[in-house]
Amino acid sequence: MIRAAVAGASGYAGGEIVRLLTNHPQVEIGTLAAGSQAGKPVTSVHPNLTPLADRQFTETTPETLDGHHVVFLALPHGQSAALARQLPDDVVLIDCGADFRLGDEAAWTTFYDTEFAGTWPYGMPELATADGPQRHQLEGARRIAVPGCYPTSASLALAPAFAAGLVDADDVVIVAASGTSGAGKSLKPHLLGAEVMGSMSPYGVGGVHRHTPEIEQNLSGAAGEPVTVSFTPTLAPMPRGILATCTARIKPGVDLAAVRRAYDAAYAEEKFVHLLPEGMWPSTGAVLGSNNVQIQVAVDAHVGRLVVASAVDNLTKGTAGAAVQCMNLALGLPESTGLPSVGVAP
Amino acid sequence: MIRAAVAGASGYAGGEIVRLLTNHPQVEIGTLAAGSQAGKPVTSVHPNLTPLADRQFTETTPETLDGHHVVFLALPHGQSAALARQLPDDVVLIDCGADFRLGDEAAWTTFYDTEFAGTWPYGMPELATADGPQRHQLEGARRIAVPGCYPTSASLALAPAFAAGLVDADDVVIVAASGTSGAGKSLKPHLLGAEVMGSMSPYGVGGVHRHTPEIEQNLSGAAGEPVTVSFTPTLAPMPRGILATCTARIKPGVDLAAVRRAYDAAYAEEKFVHLLPEGMWPSTGAVLGSNNVQIQVAVDAHVGRLVVASAVDNLTKGTAGAAVQCMNLALGLPESTGLPSVGVAP
Amino acid sequence: MIRAAVAGASGYAGGEIVRLLTNHPQVEIGTLAAGSQAGKPVTSVHPNLTPLADRQFTETTPETLDGHHVVFLALPHGQSAALARQLPDDVVLIDCGADFRLGDEAAWTTFYDTEFAGTWPYGMPELATADGPQRHQLEGARRIAVPGCYPTSASLALAPAFAAGLVDADDVVIVAASGTSGAGKSLKPHLLGAEVMGSMSPYGVGGVHRHTPEIEQNLSGAAGEPVTVSFTPTLAPMPRGILATCTARIKPGVDLAAVRRAYDAAYAEEKFVHLLPEGMWPSTGAVLGSNNVQIQVAVDAHVGRLVVASAVDNLTKGTAGAAVQCMNLALGLPESTGLPSVGVAP
Amino acid sequence: MIRAAVAGASGYAGGEIVRLLTNHPQVEIGTLAAGSQAGKPVTSVHPNLTPLADRQFTETTPETLDGHHVVFLALPHGQSAALARQLPDDVVLIDCGADFRLGDEAAWTTFYDTEFAGTWPYGMPELATADGPQRHQLEGARRIAVPGCYPTSASLALAPAFAAGLVDADDVVIVAASGTSGAGKSLKPHLLGAEVMGSMSPYGVGGVHRHTPEIEQNLSGAAGEPVTVSFTPTLAPMPRGILATCTARIKPGVDLAAVRRAYDAAYAEEKFVHLLPEGMWPSTGAVLGSNNVQIQVAVDAHVGRLVVASAVDNLTKGTAGAAVQCMNLALGLPESTGLPSVGVAP
Repeated sequence: MIRAAVAGASGYAGGEIVRLLTNHPQVEIGTLAAGSQAGKPVTSVHPNLTPLADRQFTETTPETLDGHHVVFLALPHGQSAALARQLPDDVVLIDCGADFRLGDEAAWTTFYDTEFAGTWPYGMPELATADGPQRHQLEGARRIAVPGCYPTSASLALAPAFAAGLVDADDVVIVAASGTSGAGKSLKPHLLGAEVMGSMSPYGVGGVHRHTPEIEQNLSGAAGEPVTVSFTPTLAPMPRGILATCTARIKPGVDLAAVRRAYDAAYAEEKFVHLLPEGMWPSTGAVLGSNNVQIQVAVDAHVGRLVVASAVDNLTKGTAGAAVQCMNLALGLPESTGLPSVGVAP
Repeated sequence: MIRAAVAGASGYAGGEIVRLLTNHPQVEIGTLAAGSQAGKPVTSVHPNLTPLADRQFTETTPETLDGHHVVFLALPHGQSAALARQLPDDVVLIDCGADFRLGDEAAWTTFYDTEFAGTWPYGMPELATADGPQRHQLEGARRIAVPGCYPTSASLALAPAFAAGLVDADDVVIVAASGTSGAGKSLKPHLLGAEVMGSMSPYGVGGVHRHTPEIEQNLSGAAGEPVTVSFTPTLAPMPRGILATCTARIKPGVDLAAVRRAYDAAYAEEKFVHLLPEGMWPSTGAVLGSNNVQIQVAVDAHVGRLVVASAVDNLTKGTAGAAVQCMNLALGLPESTGLPSVGVAP
Repeated sequence: MIRAAVAGASGYAGGEIVRLLTNHPQVEIGTLAAGSQAGKPVTSVHPNLTPLADRQFTETTPETLDGHHVVFLALPHGQSAALARQLPDDVVLIDCGADFRLGDEAAWTTFYDTEFAGTWPYGMPELATADGPQRHQLEGARRIAVPGCYPTSASLALAPAFAAGLVDADDVVIVAASGTSGAGKSLKPHLLGAEVMGSMSPYGVGGVHRHTPEIEQNLSGAAGEPVTVSFTPTLAPMPRGILATCTARIKPGVDLAAVRRAYDAAYAEEKFVHLLPEGMWPSTGAVLGSNNVQIQVAVDAHVGRLVVASAVDNLTKGTAGAAVQCMNLALGLPESTGLPSVGVAP
Repeated sequence: MIRAAVAGASGYAGGEIVRLLTNHPQVEIGTLAAGSQAGKPVTSVHPNLTPLADRQFTETTPETLDGHHVVFLALPHGQSAALARQLPDDVVLIDCGADFRLGDEAAWTTFYDTEFAGTWPYGMPELATADGPQRHQLEGARRIAVPGCYPTSASLALAPAFAAGLVDADDVVIVAASGTSGAGKSLKPHLLGAEVMGSMSPYGVGGVHRHTPEIEQNLSGAAGEPVTVSFTPTLAPMPRGILATCTARIKPGVDLAAVRRAYDAAYAEEKFVHLLPEGMWPSTGAVLGSNNVQIQVAVDAHVGRLVVASAVDNLTKGTAGAAVQCMNLALGLPESTGLPSVGVAP
C-alpha cells in the first residue's frame, strides 16, 4: 500500500483529495494535517468523510508528514515552498498551490507577492502540444505542480487547436464561470450563501487574475509561440464546477471538420477528456464529482472564430483529481486508478 | 460477472442505478431499457455516464431483458407488476417502484389507483425491529421491493425508538424536505428550474401522500403495534437529498442517554447508517451521491418529545443505492460492495 | 415628510428596511448608522440600493440618530436596550431585535444571556386572539418590538385555530425552513455558499431555539391558555423565505370547513395575510420581496391533526416589512403604505 | 387612468408586465389574455400576483383586447404580427417578442422561420449613438418593439465605446449567462430544476443564437459602421438575471480614463443605467426585480482589449421593465414612472 498524507486537509481542496483517496484501492490514508483545525475530528469539518469518523487533523510539521510515500500539499499560495524544502527528496510531493506552476519568474513576480520558488513538472497529462501530450514528464516524478482549476478547463479546451495550428495566437478570449468552492473556504461576505445564490458576478477583470499567465504558458507551449489571452472569471451560484467559454480567431480555410479531427486526435485515447458528439454541449452538472472534462467545439464562420466550451469539476479534475492522477503517474500505477469517471447527476 | 439490466433506465432512478453499477466490481451492465427514449444514446439523456457513451437505450420487452442475473425495475408506479410476471422466476428482480411495498391491500387501494399486486420482501436491511434488523429476509431473495425515498429517511430515523419502546405510537409528526429529482423527470411547470430555485413549498399535505402508509407499515413493524403518522413532504430548492425532521412523544423517564443507547445499538454495526456525534446535525450535502444516512437525536423535555433528523440522498440510499445493496444481499455478495460511502461535498 | 433613521443599516435586516423606505411615499431617509462599516458608501455593502449611491454609513450614536421622527433598530440581540435608553421618548423606536419581545422575564433569561430589558408593544398587527387582532395597541405607539421571522410565520399560521378553540394546546409541532439570510451576515463556514447550496440541515433542535418562547407567547395569547410547541428550524438553500409547516391536534368534530371559516374570519380583511384557495399551497418564491403571508390549511382526519403551511419572506414580512407596517400604524398612516403586496416571481 | 391589457399574460414575461403594472400609479389593469390558461385564475399561474386573486385569464382575441389604451404583447416569436394587424392604429402596442425588432429582412430570414413583419421603433431609450440616445423616437410612438434580454445587456455594455469610437468593429466577443426564466415556461427536460441547479452549460454556440443580429444591429448603429460579434449564451443556475461579459479590441492610445469618460457621458443622466464606481463589479443579485443595469469597465492593456460587464434582470429591464418604460415614453409620462429602481437583495 501507498501511504499518503495531506497538508491543508481541512480546506476544500484537501477535503476533496481525501475523498478521492478513500476510494483509491492502493492508498492508505496517513496524516491529515491542518492549521487552526489541528486536533479536531475530520468529520467536524468534512461531514461527508464518514469512513474517517475516528480521525483527527494533526498539526502541519515535517514530523507529522514523515513516513509517507506521497504528500499532497493543499495550502494557500505561497506556503508550499517552505514546507517542501523540509521534506525528503524521495517523497512524492504533489502541490495543489500555484507555487511551482510558472516557468517564468517575471510572470510570477507580476502576479504573486511571494518569492519565486522555482518550477516543477506540470501536472496536466493530457495537455496537447505539437509533440503530443507530455505525461511522460510526470512518470516517476518526485515533485509535481498541479494546475489551477481555470487553467485546466481553458487549456484543455484550446490546446489542441493551437497544437494543430488552427488558430491565431494573439486574439484569444476566455470567459469562465466557477462554482464558489473555487474561492476556498474564505470567510468573506460576498461568498455567503445569501449573497451568491441567485447571483452572478465577474471578478479579477482586465487581465489581473493570477491564472492568466498559467493559461498563456500552457497555450504558448501548445502553439510553439507566445499566446496572449483575455481572461475573465465569473462567480456562479453553484458549489462546484467550471464552465469555460473559449474563443480564438480561426485561420483561413479551417472548418469544423478540421477542428474536430484535431480534437479527436488529441483526446481519443484519453480516459478523462471527452470531445462530445455533435449536438451535445458540456454542462458542469454532468461532470460533478468526477475527473471528467467535457469539451465541445463550434466554428462561427460569420466572425471567423473557433468557440470551445469545456466543463470540469473545479475540485476534482480542477484540483484533487488531477493531483491523484499525477500521483498515479509518479508511482507507475495505471493513470486512472481510483478516479471517478462518472459524474453525480442530476 | 453478474449481468444486470435496468428497465426504466432513462429516468432519474434508472440513471442512478446505472451510475452505481458502473462502479460495481462484479457487475457487467447489460440491457438498458427505456420507453420513448429507446434507440437514443444513453449519454444524450444521462450525460454524466461517460463510460457508456457508445450505448443506446433499447425497448422494454421480456426479450431485451432476457439473459440477465438481475433486472432492476425503475418504472412509474403501477407498471412493474405486468413486466415482472413476464420475467423468469430465477432472475433477481429489484423493483424501485411502489408496486410490491405494501403488505396491506386496503392501504394500497386507498392510495393507488392500480390493482394490488402483492408484497415482496422489503429492501431496507437496516430497519430496526424488536428482533433486530431483518436483512436475512433479503439474503437469497429473488424478488425485492425497494423502499420509497421518504420512507427510507423517516423509518430509519424513528424505528430504533419504536423498537426500543421509547415513544408513543399515536403521535408521530414527520416533515420532510426533498430535492426536486424526487419528483422524477416530469415535465410539469412547478418543477421548472425558474420555479423551484429560491422557493420552498409543501405538497401532499394532510396525510394524502402515498408514502404515508409505507412509513406507518415500517414503524408499526418496529413498534409491534399500529403506528400512525402525520407526514408532510415539502419541495426544496436542491437537485437531490431528503432531510426528514421526525418527532414522537417520548415515554415518561426516557432521557437522551437512553435514546442514544437505542440508536447506537441499532446502527453501530451498520455500514451506511450513522448516528452522528453529539453536536453535529445531518445535512443532505454531506451524503450527496453516497449510500449514507446521517441521523441525530434530541430530547425536548419541555414538550416531552423526541426529535430525530435524518439526511439521505433520495436517489442513492433513497432509491438506487438501496437497490444495489439489496442485489448484493440477494446474490450473497458483501452488502456494501460497489456502494459509495463518502458524499460529494461541498 | 417623516424623517427616518436606521441603526444597524449595514446588515441584512437594516438593508431591507432601507430598501422598503426608498419606496415609501412619505418617508425621507435620514441617518444610516453602522458599526465597522461606518464611513463606507452604502452601495459598497448594499449594491442594490442604487438611489443611495451618494450616501455613506455614519457611526451609531445618539447624536447621529438625533432629529428623526422614527428610528429603526436593526442591531444584534441585546444591543437595542442600551441605545434605546439614550433616545428621546417622543421618537418612534422600532426594534427589529429580540430585546423587547418577551413579556416573561424567566423565558428571556432562559434563552438569552443579556439582562431582561422589558416589554414593548408587539408588532404583529394581524395576530389573532379571541378578541380579534390587537393592532390598536400599535396605533400611536412610540416603542414597538418587531416579531422574529419564525414567530411571524408560525404564529400567523396557527393563531386563528387557537383563537377559535379548534385545537389542543399541548401538542403543537412546527418545522420551519429558512433561507440563509435569516442567519444574518455572519461570517461562519456553514453559511458559505459552497456549503449551503444543494444542502438542507436542521439546527437548534430540541426546543433550544430562541424563537420558541416567542411562538409560545403568541399562541398562548391566542388560545387564552398556555401553549407549548416543539419547534425545529432548518436551513434551506435559498437566500430568503420561510416555509413553516405547523401541526396541532384538532378537537373532536372540527372539520376542514370549520377551520377555513376561522381563518377566513381572521384574515379576510387583512391586506397582507392570505388564506389561499383550496388546492393551492404556499411557496416562498411567491412572496419574495413582498410583505405577504400565504397560508393554507388541511385536516388530516387519519391522525386527528390540523396541518397549516405558511410562507413569508423572512426579511420583508419577517422583519423589515413588519417594521415599516408598524411605523405606519404608529404614525397614523394607512397600514400598508409603501409596502409591496406583490412578490418577485419566478 | 391608462387602461392596459396584456396578451400572453400567463408566461414569465407577461406575468412580469402585470407585476410592474400593479405598482404603476397611472395604470388600470384590463384584460389579461392567455392561450391554454384562458379561464383559469391568474394566481393559479402567478401566485405572486396576490392583488389579482379575483381575476381570470381571458382568451386572446381582438375583442377581449379592445377598449385599452395600451396592449402589451408577450407572445412567442412570430405570433405578434398577426394579432397586431387586428388591433386599432391608435392603440399603443408594445411587443415583447422579436417580430418587429430587426430592420434587415435578410437577417430576420436567416434567424427566424416566419415571414418578415416589418420594423417598429426600437425600445431601448438609453442606447448610445454618435448623436446621443434616441428616445425621442419612442415619445408618442404607437408601435414599439421591446429589445431582447441579451441584446439589452450586451448593447448597453458596449454601445458607448462604439459611439465614442474607442474600439474596433470587427472583433467583439460576448459571453453571457442567463437565469433559466429567460427560456420561458417551456416544459423541456433540460429546464427542470433538478437539471439546472448546480449546473452551467452553453447553448446556441457558434453565432446561431437569434439575438446575434439584434446585438449587431444595435452596435452598428452606435458605431456608424457594421459591427460583427461572437456571441455565446450560457444557462446559469438562477431564476433571473443576465451577466454579460463583453470584450472588444481597443484602439491605440485609449486608456481607462477615456473609457470612463465615454460611459459617464452616455449614462450620467440615465435613471436606470449605472456605471459603477471603480472597484465595484455588477452582480445580477443586485438588480433582481429592478429596472436597473449595472455596468463596469476595465482595460486589459496586455491584450489591448476593453472588457465590460453588465448585469440586468432579464425579466425586468430585459423585458417587462423596458416595456413599461416604453409605454411611459409613448404616453408622455415621466420615463421612470412605476418602475423599481432598487433590487431585491440579498
